[in-house]
Order: sequence, then C-alpha cells, then structure tokens
Amino acid sequence: MSRIYNFSAGPAILPEETIKEAQEKLYDYQGCGMSILEVSHRGKEYAAVHEELKANLKKVANISDEYALLFLGGGATTQFATVPMNLRGEGQSADYVHTGAWAGKAIKEAKVLGATNVVADTSKETPARMPDASAIQSTAGAAYLHITSNETIGGTQWRSYPRVEAPLVADMSSDIFCRPVDINSFGLIYAGAQKNLGPAGVTLVIIRKDLAERVSDKIPNIFRYKSHIAQDSLLNTPPCFSCYMLMLTTRWIMKEGGLAAIGKRNEEKAAKLYAAIDSTDFYRGTASPESRSIMNVTFRLPSEELEAKFIKDAAGQNMKGLKGHRDVGGIRASIYNAFPAAGVDALIAFMKEFEKANG
Amino acid sequence: MSRIYNFSAGPAILPEETIKEAQEKLYDYQGCGMSILEVSHRGKEYAAVHEELKANLKKVANISDEYALLFLGGGATTQFATVPMNLRGEGQSADYVHTGAWAGKAIKEAKVLGATNVVADTSKETPARMPDASAIQSTAGAAYLHITSNETIGGTQWRSYPRVEAPLVADMSSDIFCRPVDINSFGLIYAGAQKNLGPAGVTLVIIRKDLAERVSDKIPNIFRYKSHIAQDSLLNTPPCFSCYMLMLTTRWIMKEGGLAAIGKRNEEKAAKLYAAIDSTDFYRGTASPESRSIMNVTFRLPSEELEAKFIKDAAGQNMKGLKGHRDVGGIRASIYNAFPAAGVDALIAFMKEFEKANG
Repeated sequence: MSRIYNFSAGPAILPEETIKEAQEKLYDYQGCGMSILEVSHRGKEYAAVHEELKANLKKVANISDEYALLFLGGGATTQFATVPMNLRGEGQSADYVHTGAWAGKAIKEAKVLGATNVVADTSKETPARMPDASAIQSTAGAAYLHITSNETIGGTQWRSYPRVEAPLVADMSSDIFCRPVDINSFGLIYAGAQKNLGPAGVTLVIIRKDLAERVSDKIPNIFRYKSHIAQDSLLNTPPCFSCYMLMLTTRWIMKEGGLAAIGKRNEEKAAKLYAAIDSTDFYRGTASPESRSIMNVTFRLPSEELEAKFIKDAAGQNMKGLKGHRDVGGIRASIYNAFPAAGVDALIAFMKEFEKANG
Repeated sequence: MSRIYNFSAGPAILPEETIKEAQEKLYDYQGCGMSILEVSHRGKEYAAVHEELKANLKKVANISDEYALLFLGGGATTQFATVPMNLRGEGQSADYVHTGAWAGKAIKEAKVLGATNVVADTSKETPARMPDASAIQSTAGAAYLHITSNETIGGTQWRSYPRVEAPLVADMSSDIFCRPVDINSFGLIYAGAQKNLGPAGVTLVIIRKDLAERVSDKIPNIFRYKSHIAQDSLLNTPPCFSCYMLMLTTRWIMKEGGLAAIGKRNEEKAAKLYAAIDSTDFYRGTASPESRSIMNVTFRLPSEELEAKFIKDAAGQNMKGLKGHRDVGGIRASIYNAFPAAGVDALIAFMKEFEKANG
C-alpha cells in the first residue's frame, strides 16, 4: 500500500518521520528493554522526553519563563471548563468572542459556571468570517477575553488577534504553530494535540504563571493550573505516549526550519488551493476571503450529489477525509502542518479533472 | 538487548504481544494508508476499535447493559473530583474508607467539594492493612461509599468488598481485572489504564447508568458522566491510541483464558513471592498477611543500605523498577497481569543469592 493523503480535520496527519521513529523504537525504547509505553513517568527515560519537550517548545515558540507549559488529559473540551474555573473569580465575568461551533461550545460551558459576556458574534453570518480584531474591546472588569483562533467547521481563522485590556485566552487547537505566534500577547493558550501537535490524548496549555494564582481553593486540586505548575505537569501520570509524540513533533518543526518556515509553507499550500477554488464558478469557498483558514479549506460544489461524488472519487485516488463536518456539509480539506504540498497539488489536479468530467 | 523484567508500579509492563502488534501496524493500520495515530475518531477504523473494546470488556467482566463504559482522559486523579461532582447532591454527604496514600488523595479532593465522612481508617496502621469489609457500614443518606481496592504504596488489597446500603464506588486503578470481579456489586468502578489495562492516557469508568442521572446542571458538561454516556464516550475526541492499546489488552485477556485464568496465575505469582519473603528473617513483608496485595508486593531488608544495594544489583540482572515509593522506601515488586511468572522466579532466585552474599 502507499500512504494516502489524509485530509481529516483531527485526529489528523502526522509527520511521517515521527511515526516511523515511534514505530522503530516502540518495542525497545533506546535499548532500555521496555517500550516507551511501559516506562515509569518518574524514570529517567520519560524524564528525558519531558525535559526535551519543554525545551523544544520554548525554543520553537520563543516562550519565556513567565509562562508554564502543561500537558494535560481530557482534550481542549476540558479546558472549556477549567479556564473559567481557574481565571474567573467569584462574581466576576468573562468575555467571549463567538465565531462558530467551537467558540460556541466554549461559551456554553463558561455559562454553566458564571457570568459570560459575548462581546462579538459572527457565528450566524454567511459567508463565515472572523470579527475585525481591532474593533474588539473587553468589558470593564472581565477576567479574560476568550477567542477561538481557528474554526475547523466554518473554515475561518483570525489573521491578527484582538489587543484588549483583559488577558487574552485562545483555543488554538486547530492552528497552533501554523505560523509564528507572539506568546507574550496571550495570557493563556490551549490546544488539543490532534491537529498540529501529535496524536489525540494530550492538551498543551501555555499559561502566564501569574494568572494561575487566581484560582480559588474551592476548585478541585486536579483542575487547578497552579497545582499542575507546582508539580511541573507531573501532578499525576501524564498521557506519556501522546507527550512523546508531541516531543517528536517539536523536533520535526525545528528540523523543518521552525515556525517561520512552517508558516510560509502553510500560506503557500492554502493560497494555491484557494486560487484553484476561485478560478472557477464550479467551486465556491464558504469563508469570507479575509477570514479564510490556512488549516481548514472549506468549499461547496453546485449540488450535494456532486459533493458526494467528489468525496467518493477523491477517495478512489487515495485522498481521504474530505467530507465537510456533518453540521454544514460540503467539502473540507484540512491541510495541517504535516500535510505535504504534494497532497495539495494532487487535490488541485483532481479538482480540475472532476470539474471537466462533471461541470 | 533482551526484554527486562519491569517491576514498575505504573506505567507498567504490558503484554509483549500487544506491543508487537501495535508496532507492526503503527505505520499503516490495516492497509488504510494511515497510522492508527492519524485516523479520525469518527472514521470506520476507529469505530471498529471502539466497538470491539466495549464488546470485549463486557464479555471479559460480564458487564450488563445496566452499566455504561466510558474511556476518559485526565487519569484516575480526575475521577477523585468527578465522582463527587456527579454522585453527591447538594447538601448530601459521601462516605470514604481511608486505607493509604491513594484513598487519602481521593478523600482530600472529595472534601474540597462537600461533606465527606471517613467511615473507617487504617491509613496510619503498621503493618499496613485493609479494614474488615464485613464491619464497614455506610452513613444514613450517604450518596455513595468509596474504597480504593488496592493501595500500590502500602502493598495492601481488599480480599472481599464491603456490602453496604449506599452504592459502592471503587478506585480499581492498580488491580482492575487482576481476578474475576462482580461488577453488579458496584455502582461505579474507575481505573487509570497504566497498570493492568494499557498505557497511560485513558481511564476506564464502569458506571451503573441510573447513578449518572443524579448530576446537577451546575456541573460543567464535560465532567458529567451522563453527557459522556449520551455520546457513547465520544463526546469529545477520546485518547484514541490508549483506547486502542486497551482494546488489544482485552484481546490478550480473552486469549489467556479470561479473568479466572489471569486471577489464578496472579495468585500463584504472589503466593510464591510472599513465601520467599516469609521463608527468612532477612526479608520482611510490610503488609499484614490478610491484606497482602497480589499486585504490589512490598518488603524491607535489614537496612536501607542493603535495600539500595538490592535495587542496584537487581537492576544489573535486568530486574528494574523495584524501588519502593519515595514516601515509604523499601522494595516494591509490582507484578501486574502482564508480568510473567518467570520474572517472579528470577526475582526469588536473586533474593536467595542476595541474602547468601549479604545476609
């Protein structure tokens, strides 16, 4: 068999060399006589993974010692709850920007726990778009302002971020490290690994340490960022293998030239694909051009029947995962960091063929 | 190199054949052109894993449809918080049995959130022991009674379980499926995978469905068992690879003859090792004989110096992970389901040699 082009929205394609390395070492990790799946999280083999993971992330994203790195289980969805639990004090409110399905889930969870202001809302607009970042302001006294940096379903992405009084919190699950990021303009960033970082099972949290001090002692210890920071993210057994794969991904990012090189490649891949969409009336992008995501490229065909045929025929040419989210339909090509430029070229060639045959 | 005998308390030894199978298929899962690390949790490859995992667990432990199976991130430590969040109503209390370090952590977290009765406490006793199960009673009106089925640090284990009015909740992280278990006598069982089930990253929750209905809508959705049950444990992206390994472990359990056969082997391994300890005054078991764990065998030597030498010399003979927990010192041999009888024999032979040379 040959490796397919995996356009899945997540879990998603990983750098091929990280899978090969993990496979090669899976039975006997560095001659220790155990699998990486079997080593103690307090032992020297895992300690080396943990230390390299932190060091590589700091280097890759230029993260200062003002910030702590946490590797938590439970997915980004768990952070929808733990962010307000940690950062929003009793009687305090928090600001959210509503931009689509994922922002909506974060808002819904925040509302369970306390006062939640939606300070901007583009979630119902067609074409889908992100708000104008420069127009966003935080509410007086808000504990933080939360954004979703990329909406995987709507295919939208912020090009620049709001600069507001309140600490900025971002769910970057679907576009973290897709290009250079100024960590210092954020109070907290979280990201489920399963798009740009590694396999499912670990969520990266980058938090400005002073914000972790806000937490009330009425919050369970396991949900306090402060407690995880105090234990260097080894408060309890971490999702070790997912962290190991995340570490291998950081090595790959560095080898590829860092976030600047990754970002340039991502911009090129996306630009090519959007140009192909725009070159004909047969395909129609669903996101407003200024908000188009370079991670999730969403488009429609003239009919749902043609879309179903497109997905089926593409699968026959080893391009899989192109079906849009069940809530919106259409086509979605997720082209994360590890997705090769050759796969975008293959999709574009297929789109031309398909239009010729069916247009 | 040869595979070592891994006596780690967790993450711990896994069935060798599960690692080999995972390794073989890691690059291209069943010819799908993707790694199991890369497939969508909504796609057909992962759906088959998920369905087989549930079916195998039901078969292995004879679990009826009254119970739901959940595969959650965050470790058993997260369950210390979510059990009271879900099962203990406002103004209600919950009962806990305090038997050592792990029960103590569960109690501490339960106290953050509400009224917590410690109905029996052997945590400070020497030698370490579990309470008499038949003497345990639940408090009138208690939401549930919580026990820790095995204390990995103290090396103690319940031989039979309390039968009480309140639903019985058990943290079985370190001895789940070490022998047959009557699921019907429990309201809820939870277990971090990294001892008897698979690698770190997933926690198995077996919950009687009616108990999940108790949850208040003031609890964040992601922490509600009810919400996870409604989505068949696919409420958010699960820790897919850990679940896949757990599924392979269930296959291995069935191939080995099920829990009855596993339990018989575990009893034999432990009996041999305790007999070796008891055959001389050089070694001294730390747990009271009636409470001895068949998973974590804890013992001391005449001095800490000799213990350090024992650990070092054993490591030289490819027996690793024998150091007792840092809080108590001594020796701990964790001999979980996947630990081979030959490894126990090797340890016993080494113990004899070591005593001869140093006794």
